Amino acid sequence: MAANIAAVLHGPYDVRIEDIPVPEIANDEVLVKMDCVGICGSDVKMYTTGACGAEVVSEPIVLGHEGAGVIVKIGSRVSSLEVGDRVSIEPTQPCRRCEYCKLGRYNLCAAPRYCSTTGASGNLCHYYKHVADFCHKMPDNLSMEEGAAVQPLAIAMHACNRAGIRLGQRVLILGAGPIGILCAMTARAMGASAILMTDVVQSRLDTARELGADYTLLVKRDTSDQEMVDGIVARLGGQPDVTIDACAYASAQRVAMLVTKTAGVVLVVGIGDSKVEVPLTQALIREVDVRGSYRIVNTYPPALAAVSSGAINLKKFITDHFPLQKTKEALDLAKSGNAMKIIIHVHKIDRN
Amino acid sequence: MAANIAAVLHGPYDVRIEDIPVPEIANDEVLVKMDCVGICGSDVKMYTTGACGAEVVSEPIVLGHEGAGVIVKIGSRVSSLEVGDRVSIEPTQPCRRCEYCKLGRYNLCAAPRYCSTTGASGNLCHYYKHVADFCHKMPDNLSMEEGAAVQPLAIAMHACNRAGIRLGQRVLILGAGPIGILCAMTARAMGASAILMTDVVQSRLDTARELGADYTLLVKRDTSDQEMVDGIVARLGGQPDVTIDACAYASAQRVAMLVTKTAGVVLVVGIGDSKVEVPLTQALIREVDVRGSYRIVNTYPPALAAVSSGAINLKKFITDHFPLQKTKEALDLAKSGNAMKIIIHVHKIDRN
Amino acid sequence: MAANIAAVLHGPYDVRIEDIPVPEIANDEVLVKMDCVGICGSDVKMYTTGACGAEVVSEPIVLGHEGAGVIVKIGSRVSSLEVGDRVSIEPTQPCRRCEYCKLGRYNLCAAPRYCSTTGASGNLCHYYKHVADFCHKMPDNLSMEEGAAVQPLAIAMHACNRAGIRLGQRVLILGAGPIGILCAMTARAMGASAILMTDVVQSRLDTARELGADYTLLVKRDTSDQEMVDGIVARLGGQPDVTIDACAYASAQRVAMLVTKTAGVVLVVGIGDSKVEVPLTQALIREVDVRGSYRIVNTYPPALAAVSSGAINLKKFITDHFPLQKTKEALDLAKSGNAMKIIIHVHKIDRN
Amino acid sequence: MAANIAAVLHGPYDVRIEDIPVPEIANDEVLVKMDCVGICGSDVKMYTTGACGAEVVSEPIVLGHEGAGVIVKIGSRVSSLEVGDRVSIEPTQPCRRCEYCKLGRYNLCAAPRYCSTTGASGNLCHYYKHVADFCHKMPDNLSMEEGAAVQPLAIAMHACNRAGIRLGQRVLILGAGPIGILCAMTARAMGASAILMTDVVQSRLDTARELGADYTLLVKRDTSDQEMVDGIVARLGGQPDVTIDACAYASAQRVAMLVTKTAGVVLVVGIGDSKVEVPLTQALIREVDVRGSYRIVNTYPPALAAVSSGAINLKKFITDHFPLQKTKEALDLAKSGNAMKIIIHVHKIDRN
Repeated sequence: MAANIAAVLHGPYDVRIEDIPVPEIANDEVLVKMDCVGICGSDVKMYTTGACGAEVVSEPIVLGHEGAGVIVKIGSRVSSLEVGDRVSIEPTQPCRRCEYCKLGRYNLCAAPRYCSTTGASGNLCHYYKHVADFCHKMPDNLSMEEGAAVQPLAIAMHACNRAGIRLGQRVLILGAGPIGILCAMTARAMGASAILMTDVVQSRLDTARELGADYTLLVKRDTSDQEMVDGIVARLGGQPDVTIDACAYASAQRVAMLVTKTAGVVLVVGIGDSKVEVPLTQALIREVDVRGSYRIVNTYPPALAAVSSGAINLKKFITDHFPLQKTKEALDLAKSGNAMKIIIHVHKIDRN
Repeated sequence: MAANIAAVLHGPYDVRIEDIPVPEIANDEVLVKMDCVGICGSDVKMYTTGACGAEVVSEPIVLGHEGAGVIVKIGSRVSSLEVGDRVSIEPTQPCRRCEYCKLGRYNLCAAPRYCSTTGASGNLCHYYKHVADFCHKMPDNLSMEEGAAVQPLAIAMHACNRAGIRLGQRVLILGAGPIGILCAMTARAMGASAILMTDVVQSRLDTARELGADYTLLVKRDTSDQEMVDGIVARLGGQPDVTIDACAYASAQRVAMLVTKTAGVVLVVGIGDSKVEVPLTQALIREVDVRGSYRIVNTYPPALAAVSSGAINLKKFITDHFPLQKTKEALDLAKSGNAMKIIIHVHKIDRN
Repeated sequence: MAANIAAVLHGPYDVRIEDIPVPEIANDEVLVKMDCVGICGSDVKMYTTGACGAEVVSEPIVLGHEGAGVIVKIGSRVSSLEVGDRVSIEPTQPCRRCEYCKLGRYNLCAAPRYCSTTGASGNLCHYYKHVADFCHKMPDNLSMEEGAAVQPLAIAMHACNRAGIRLGQRVLILGAGPIGILCAMTARAMGASAILMTDVVQSRLDTARELGADYTLLVKRDTSDQEMVDGIVARLGGQPDVTIDACAYASAQRVAMLVTKTAGVVLVVGIGDSKVEVPLTQALIREVDVRGSYRIVNTYPPALAAVSSGAINLKKFITDHFPLQKTKEALDLAKSGNAMKIIIHVHKIDRN
Repeated sequence: MAANIAAVLHGPYDVRIEDIPVPEIANDEVLVKMDCVGICGSDVKMYTTGACGAEVVSEPIVLGHEGAGVIVKIGSRVSSLEVGDRVSIEPTQPCRRCEYCKLGRYNLCAAPRYCSTTGASGNLCHYYKHVADFCHKMPDNLSMEEGAAVQPLAIAMHACNRAGIRLGQRVLILGAGPIGILCAMTARAMGASAILMTDVVQSRLDTARELGADYTLLVKRDTSDQEMVDGIVARLGGQPDVTIDACAYASAQRVAMLVTKTAGVVLVVGIGDSKVEVPLTQALIREVDVRGSYRIVNTYPPALAAVSSGAINLKKFITDHFPLQKTKEALDLAKSGNAMKIIIHVHKIDRN
């Protein structure tokens, strides 16, 4: 367990591959030998700007929060895991003591330790420690790559839970990036009968069709809100029961509020502008609920079960592979928008 | 049953007291001899502008949708009511056949006949017909005035249901008009432990304190959103679990989104501007749900029960009385904002 | 539109093929030329005993409540359907006026007209009338047989809705008859990741495996409750989150209460004995909710959408076919338990 | 902080007042100087039989789980409390790591440390340690006695939450012991408009009337289920929307299943017989849900708020007072059934 090579962000565009200390584990923690770590849009934002939301890189930080690996050491009070277990790492370590933790909404915990945010290391490294109960043992039929990709799936699943998607519904998803695509897969697995995805990039829509969307609609620079509404209704055969805004643009939120069916739900996943000008009244007087979803809460177990049972297939979702040493190249590709899900292989690339 | 004197709106500021035909009833309808009818903000809007929301007075229309009276005739298939029954009239007659009616959300019915809107007479008249099952038999201990005031109470109760108010919560109500006040009373009856109301008029806040608010906050022209937030938290002893916007102003919606506690609810009752500039993201990333409530659904029976049991006291809420002939004066007073709830006594004024 | 041949039950084992009058339709009704009608367990009960639950055959009654056909005439106020439309008939005609109808729970209406119960004709005949809004237009890619089978699917879907099945859950279904099988299909479409079915007949379990169950467990005469519990947990890899009792036997309810996971749901579909001896406390102190589901409410539209989208495949579920003239033979086969879903073809058998 | 006098149960009827060590606190714990501790039915069961449910007194155990006191020492990581704070002690210390804890249902935690059960001391002693976040700071206007009585109130409030009581409903409560009475108070605070309580002891019903029941019904040895049903409906003016079984007798559960209104809820609080013979079908086919509630989850904060705001008044609920040295006498009185809530004053009796 000599070296602990890590991808460390020092500032905008400054990712360094460094040797960091192997962490000591506490009684309730485990040490994970990392295997696969996915690249997320927030990693790209951190990489290009040195900040993401309220997070600012004030000191060097290990990247990575979509990780899977193998347990190599367990704390003295850990009974749920054993050395050798393959685990998918839920990237939060909430306080467990605030009212949100007690209410079962630990994603809203005010003081979590969340991978690759201030005070909490990411897991794009050889050895990473985490509390045992947020390391989820993987079913045998999942690959390590899939174990890593379960993280964004758990995000999407929480979004779809909050949206309340039910069997037989029409679902509109605005934005065909990785989270949008995973929302489509989840919506399908929950029984949605018609799914339309929109995006400004045709190639993303092509991927969307392949991975789960029934219909797509290309948004052009000059497409008006009303044209969007008309195009959506025409393709879906009616108004969507649920609209998921997976791009968090004001324009998407406007369309969502106008097009969603009376008594439906608009769900925003992701962080949009601090102020938006929207036709809120048009949603509210029709009792269309407007909700957000934040991070992950209690969706790792069902996400793992859904991938294991085949209800959700992540294989085509994972498109690109890099070794840890080429993290910078991976981030550059992610930034280009020409990849769906990029996996960093910490030890070696073997499509397991 | 000779004359049927009615208050008919012909256009802005043009209310006429006229004799109209006594309506014929169908098998499933009843004829009600009206007694008390309340004046609502939407009546004032119709009176002053000739329009309210999508409703435009294109032909003369009988005003009134907050009515109570006595059954004088029943249709051949009516078994739930008898001649002589005192009833509070739920002002809608939904289609019963659309998906919203079947889902138990008949307030969202696309084709209801709603008192004093196009194609449906109001009940500010001597004789009014209505489907029997939307005429709710009043408990013996309710006065006719209270029976009329149950209509806005049922509006408030639906709003509070949608807001999901629970025992022990802090509730903020923006706007101390009649609906805001009734929301406060309802929130109290549902167990809210601290209620703060805001308004731009101090006298309304004085009434609010008398009728149910624990705390009040006067909003001045130059009060900033942040000052509002700070003042609310200081008075309530914490952020509100639920915020009800009972004025539907953009400024209220901004404050609501900022001040409501993480995982809480912002509920808008009433119809606001078609576009608003709001910090929606600040609500959504904290999973504060934004909901609207529209009209009434299934809240007449609990409203009648709550008034009858004493959980809600409408007596102080009713402030002013006019005979039918002085409907115009009643509307002028309502317009001035110097009254809480005005009751028109159709036959004679006897505070029963 | 000369003859209206119908299968009429006169008493136990006394089904007669008779010519009855073509019904006159009211303003809000349609006349349906029936095509396919499924045979249900309740039909068999009526056929063999002359009674089913509270229903007793006191006068001759047309059988059939799982029907699909083509509109041949519409009432003057019907705008949702046209002559020639293919429809699946939801067999209830609720009162629309009671509190349950208004609450969106019209399946609990105290005074519905329900096909083939006292006062309401069944639809196993050439011409049948029904209120228009309970005739659901079928998607083009559904066959008439499927349109008939949507009725028991809608029953199963309501049961699964009440059970609150969610993505990634383990589901136990006790009883592999038609409703149990359809519950399994629906649970799968809602995202259940592991489904176990039990029955006392091995051939039914074989069908269950083919149509959607991941695991099966044969119940023998001397299998103890504890053996059942152990066998279920071993096969499912853990306790079920949701247990559906689709046989309504006391023994099934006992096992359900013992085996269901803490905080889970036991859902009983079907009508069991009037008194049962059960370990209710073992469920309740673990906050396992015990719920029933009764008939159908608002599940025709999602059922049609789910079959149309391919989320649910009814083709293998339909196993046997008879012409109307052989209704007695169809009932005898149904009674034998050797068929899954039997379809009566009213006009001619063409597997459309 | 010399002596730590405690009431220790050694076996049936063997309570000894002993000096035990003052506990050492961990980083996240506080030391509480106990003031008031209530006596509960489970204490009486332990006292008279040496066992309660699955709990058996195999070694001496300090009694008490309804306690309030003052913080005298805080652990190094405690920031939510200070020395001198008056706290009401939620008697559980859940594992925080199992799926139920994460789901916000920590009352169902499989491995909690719960006051006065195996491995966890009770708090009927001078000095008691507890994790800080389950010690709830009391509002200034609550007495220590009320702080102790908040524990059974939090039980009742969880039961009423699970029952889903809403404004304007009719509520039936079977059993007028302390939990039944507190359920009545809570139901009232949640807006129930008519509450009926039953019991086999008239004096309890007299207390019930005084403390919140609108109606009462005495159950006699030979009262039949049907007589109960008739008597309840007659007094309440209709069937109850919600029935709470606060005695967990099979007879109560039978009546609950028969009398509760279609689409209503039967909620059982408390632990009944391991098997019961009940008309479950009569409830389930009418979609009356049968639920249990177990201990407390997230109801201390609203309970404290409701007492502080005056929505719930515990003063009359507390009937008897004993010093710690007379714990045996207190238990004997509790056993007699002639007291509502008995408070043990650990230091001295001053009705604060």
